[in-house]
Amino acid sequence: MDKQKLYVVKIGGDLIDKEKDLADFLEKFTTIKAMKVLVHGGGKLASDLAGKLNIPQQMLEGRRVTDQETLNIVTMVYAGKINKNIVAKLQNVDCNAIGFSGADGNLIKSERRAVSNVDYGFVGDVDSKSVNVDLLQKFLELKLTPVFSAITHDQKGDLLNTNADSIASVLAQALSENYDVELLYCFDKDGVLEDVDKPDSMVKTLSFAKYEQLRSENKLHQGILPKLKNAFTAKENNVNKVVLLNETKLQNQINHQNEGTEIIL
Amino acid sequence: MDKQKLYVVKIGGDLIDKEKDLADFLEKFTTIKAMKVLVHGGGKLASDLAGKLNIPQQMLEGRRVTDQETLNIVTMVYAGKINKNIVAKLQNVDCNAIGFSGADGNLIKSERRAVSNVDYGFVGDVDSKSVNVDLLQKFLELKLTPVFSAITHDQKGDLLNTNADSIASVLAQALSENYDVELLYCFDKDGVLEDVDKPDSMVKTLSFAKYEQLRSENKLHQGILPKLKNAFTAKENNVNKVVLLNETKLQNQINHQNEGTEIIL
Repeated sequence: MDKQKLYVVKIGGDLIDKEKDLADFLEKFTTIKAMKVLVHGGGKLASDLAGKLNIPQQMLEGRRVTDQETLNIVTMVYAGKINKNIVAKLQNVDCNAIGFSGADGNLIKSERRAVSNVDYGFVGDVDSKSVNVDLLQKFLELKLTPVFSAITHDQKGDLLNTNADSIASVLAQALSENYDVELLYCFDKDGVLEDVDKPDSMVKTLSFAKYEQLRSENKLHQGILPKLKNAFTAKENNVNKVVLLNETKLQNQINHQNEGTEIIL
Repeated sequence: MDKQKLYVVKIGGDLIDKEKDLADFLEKFTTIKAMKVLVHGGGKLASDLAGKLNIPQQMLEGRRVTDQETLNIVTMVYAGKINKNIVAKLQNVDCNAIGFSGADGNLIKSERRAVSNVDYGFVGDVDSKSVNVDLLQKFLELKLTPVFSAITHDQKGDLLNTNADSIASVLAQALSENYDVELLYCFDKDGVLEDVDKPDSMVKTLSFAKYEQLRSENKLHQGILPKLKNAFTAKENNVNKVVLLNETKLQNQINHQNEGTEIIL
């Protein structure tokens, strides 16, 4: 394959909440010699700040209902505190990181979610066409390492809260046109369990048929379903390799030891 | 002069606090056809958030003593909420804005202020060598409009709170090597008053000798002294034009109507 290798690495709130573990992770992340993009969530810190400010939070199917005050909170926490601290820490270990929201350089434009039964407020949805891949590629060619927070914009002046797993997926899809992309969903489990009640039931590969079967049998953890949906969408849209793995195993994965659960079609 | 024209425009907290006025200002800012860089402060919103979170704030000679909790606040407010909202609003009026802290792309590295009589905490000082002008120029060549918040980093992993007037000054100085830079300090006064008690005493030009004289006679407003110091440093370091003007007069200035007070040597 002629395309250059590129990793899209997604990390979640569980890691971001632990300062020492995050620092360890970032040090390993910098050892990736190939081009790389980092995507982070950060849910718990946003909930903590909302609590301190007495702004009630409503979660629906794992998604945060985002009124104006909550949008301010997630913008401050995701695009401000978490994003800039990650960038500063990566700069300290000689990785020329650069932090973005989707508004910056119009890198990720989203559609505000239509009101149906639920009004999610300032929440945006993305697909692979949302990504300004030309500009992103110019940054990669400048040897920069983009770090994306889960805030996008509608290009009508509003910021929108967006699912970080979805952002990782659409970035991987859009970049696959010109790069050999490996999308790594890092989290606090070793991979996908065939049976949520059996910790040693991790599957090495997960096909869509198998996923549908496990889901119909209610064997999958509810929390992993949106992540898997994004993982399959990426794989269906030409992302070369998609893996869900433990964040502590990143280095093994980079060294081709095939950690976690690989998504297959 | 062969160099391309470039504006460095600084806006302060008084403007940022007024949503409608800020939107008006940003619309005028986008009419600048030349290359442009925006720098913003945002002090009052940070103090508001600190108040709501019961984190006491200490100001010394107009500078915020920045402990770890206060650093989190200014990072959230300056690099998160204010920066990303400005970028989203500029995107809405067809300006391809991109928001930065100094940590992003190592664009502005600062020195943590040494502890003398006072420990300012996480406060960083900058000079023209702090600016990664090569990378900044690449962004300008990509037709991007950089928007800088007043957060920098020490490249040792820490973010540092930095004076926004100083950031505007050092950006203007660093960019003057390759551009014909006009540095505009926009604020809520028409310019520098020869006598703070006489509103109609604005001076059209202010030389360093005149500044020293007015200062020794205690005729200048205390709040304008750090801004003037940064303005003179810029002018002394080859910035072609340095002006302090009313933020409502930006468009006149761009149309060469010579608003405000111009700094001369």
